[in-house]
Amino acid sequence: MPKVVDHDQRRVELVGATWRLIARDGLEGATMREIAAEAGFANGALKPYFGSKEQLLTFAFEHVFNETNKRIDNATGSKKGLAALRLFCHEVLPLDEEKRSEARIVIAFWQRALVDESKSALHEQSMEQWRKRILVHLRDARAAGETLPLISDDDFAGILMNMLLGAQTSAALAPGTSTPAQLISHLEALLRLIHNP
Amino acid sequence: MPKVVDHDQRRVELVGATWRLIARDGLEGATMREIAAEAGFANGALKPYFGSKEQLLTFAFEHVFNETNKRIDNATGSKKGLAALRLFCHEVLPLDEEKRSEARIVIAFWQRALVDESKSALHEQSMEQWRKRILVHLRDARAAGETLPLISDDDFAGILMNMLLGAQTSAALAPGTSTPAQLISHLEALLRLIHNP
Repeated sequence: MPKVVDHDQRRVELVGATWRLIARDGLEGATMREIAAEAGFANGALKPYFGSKEQLLTFAFEHVFNETNKRIDNATGSKKGLAALRLFCHEVLPLDEEKRSEARIVIAFWQRALVDESKSALHEQSMEQWRKRILVHLRDARAAGETLPLISDDDFAGILMNMLLGAQTSAALAPGTSTPAQLISHLEALLRLIHNP
Repeated sequence: MPKVVDHDQRRVELVGATWRLIARDGLEGATMREIAAEAGFANGALKPYFGSKEQLLTFAFEHVFNETNKRIDNATGSKKGLAALRLFCHEVLPLDEEKRSEARIVIAFWQRALVDESKSALHEQSMEQWRKRILVHLRDARAAGETLPLISDDDFAGILMNMLLGAQTSAALAPGTSTPAQLISHLEALLRLIHNP
């Protein structure tokens, strides 16, 4: 009987190999040959999965985004309003080594998205999905009387989205001044500013 | 009489050529040969200025940081407190085409800083300089009774710094949902949350 190959699982292994190499050598350093070797593939065996490093990087970004969304769904469950918003942010903020690795992939992806419209469109759609999620939580929080109507939900969502994006850069490049404790403290402070005591 | 060459001026011209090429072809696409051609240098004439693309990228980041600081000094003048903080943010936020070009250079620099300690140290020092500046404005604002003591200055500075960093990514990759009007609106909303009416 022929061996059944789980293609999705192998793609995910390649993502792991890609981010280890990006973390070690940068995006330019990670050749398709090295990624294959790191993932335990024969040279050339990558082709059925990814034709180019660009495809691999796009898949890696989608994978990071989907994994983050799975964690968000697990963490928030049936929670609503500020409680759900807080847990959403805990999954997006780079609070542990796994999420800091994800931040590195995302920064490498951004740099390529500067000159690749399909990548910048993917970034934009993904961020819009999160913005809508934030807006739902803010609407529910307001309806439950949890928040004060000091600024618009659109403005609060914009502040929060950019803070979460900036935290990826800070934690990846200046981890000493963006520790998990500091990132959580900033988040709690921001939520406190709109909280109805 | 030998022609006097203004080396600093020529370095700045090279930065301009670099960011035009990064904007068009990405960091990988911009070879030293192409950068020389774009800046009107003979091939090989770059060497006295920059030995490698890495040096050029570091110089470009420093140049963007210094130019932004010059604009901040000009804009703030003798202003203090929230007025100075607002003007500081207006110069850092990517509110026009020049600043969006700067954001592109900075994102390319971040990606290289992931694997180059001298670059990540430069990023960290530069951001610390801005964080201290923000803290001075917040202290002055508090002393003048402009702000409410709702959250710590450290937390507000952390929120603002990450929001400003995230805005670079948003404006470069999703300009349709991070227009100048939206970025200003988010900033005003954030300042309103701590403002003493």
